[in-house]
Amino acid sequence: MKFDYKELLDNCIPGLSIDCVVFGYKDKKLHVLLVRFIDSHVWALPGGFIPKDQDMDAVANQVLFQRTGLQEVFLQQSHIFSSLNRHFDINTRSRLVMDTIKKTWMEDQKEALEAWFSERFISTAYMALVDAEKVHPQTDVLSDACDWIPLDELPDLLLDHREMIDEAHRQLRMKIRLLPIGKSLLPERFTMSDLQSLYEAILDQKLDRGNFQRKMIRLGFLNRHEKLMTGAQNKAPYLYSINDEAYDQLLKHGINFI
Amino acid sequence: MKFDYKELLDNCIPGLSIDCVVFGYKDKKLHVLLVRFIDSHVWALPGGFIPKDQDMDAVANQVLFQRTGLQEVFLQQSHIFSSLNRHFDINTRSRLVMDTIKKTWMEDQKEALEAWFSERFISTAYMALVDAEKVHPQTDVLSDACDWIPLDELPDLLLDHREMIDEAHRQLRMKIRLLPIGKSLLPERFTMSDLQSLYEAILDQKLDRGNFQRKMIRLGFLNRHEKLMTGAQNKAPYLYSINDEAYDQLLKHGINFI
Repeated sequence: MKFDYKELLDNCIPGLSIDCVVFGYKDKKLHVLLVRFIDSHVWALPGGFIPKDQDMDAVANQVLFQRTGLQEVFLQQSHIFSSLNRHFDINTRSRLVMDTIKKTWMEDQKEALEAWFSERFISTAYMALVDAEKVHPQTDVLSDACDWIPLDELPDLLLDHREMIDEAHRQLRMKIRLLPIGKSLLPERFTMSDLQSLYEAILDQKLDRGNFQRKMIRLGFLNRHEKLMTGAQNKAPYLYSINDEAYDQLLKHGINFI
Repeated sequence: MKFDYKELLDNCIPGLSIDCVVFGYKDKKLHVLLVRFIDSHVWALPGGFIPKDQDMDAVANQVLFQRTGLQEVFLQQSHIFSSLNRHFDINTRSRLVMDTIKKTWMEDQKEALEAWFSERFISTAYMALVDAEKVHPQTDVLSDACDWIPLDELPDLLLDHREMIDEAHRQLRMKIRLLPIGKSLLPERFTMSDLQSLYEAILDQKLDRGNFQRKMIRLGFLNRHEKLMTGAQNKAPYLYSINDEAYDQLLKHGINFI
């Protein structure tokens, strides 16, 4: 199948790209949204190029929307990757992906596209946190799969995409200690145990139950509701939701532990 | 005065730049290193362009070295600024700076340079923390001043450089709650009061003395030395230095307050 790459050649900035590390939480595990290229079957982060008339955050939001159908999610710049190794001729995996892409080139654009794709791409990695249940992952013309993959079962990835995930995860572990960023990963009502499981999945460590509960309550961003009615009444856990106003304040100023 | 811009035109990536927000601490205030363009007298962050054969962190390190003479300082990516307004024709200040730069162009490079500088520049802001006492700020051919300016006395700046400083300061306020990043801002030996003053300058708020001291000691990254011998012996404060090993561990894993 051939595509017209006129828009790319005329209107996108050569040598620049973005990649999105989209974290979702399900089955008590942190997952990452990955796409699989047709033919080559190489897995990669969803990404895109930068039109000359758009800023990067807008592009990242679009990529996220295309892949997940979600808008207004927690999306932040994570890190810029500019290693001189960031080009498609660096290893077998990236050459396989390039071969796949080349099959879609039309004869009269071949030369320009060859030049376009031969550069080092400086890529800005974004990190997004979404409610995995709300997402219907979308493939596109170059991918035959778009799936949630658990963080502990990642396949080999294109270029330095594994490093991008590791860096985003490191930042997420840091941020969750400072900011109440669990909101977009959780359903509207949840138990304290759900919240603790999420923190444990992100931090990749077990936390003390009493200690965790005390700290979360003290932060003051939780509304307590009725008990979750399953099993014995006296053991039923309370349901919580997030107090948006307090949450936004915390998100703005951070948890002040000094 | 005319310069040869061959290196820029042949070897740098058009439309990409870096800017460095260099924080230094002196007179109990947080300062930023700024440069002033000749003729126009517009103040700006020190910055540079990206050679095709270098990664961005290396470029940022070079800019920092040129301006401060320092190597191996705390330097991290802060944020990418890609607004469509990031071009030299956006306001009077930026046009003045452009006029200054144009005066240095040679006739036969004018056309190419005109094209080069007419683009939107997507700029990566870096944040550095340095010991202000160790720095001898350096001007270059396009600047007649390079100085430490207190954060609360910033002049009007080129383009969105003020936003870059505000964002870096916001991140610094967040990070100092998670990471012991004061090291590069402090002399080798300091009192607890010095450390508290630094935190207060960064956070822009007064902290409780007893509480601060308890928390810092508990973090375990301070070595306690002899007392600072000034005034009455019984009131003399202890001197502290940073335990590099414990500091590096904290820097790697963050302060675990959950």
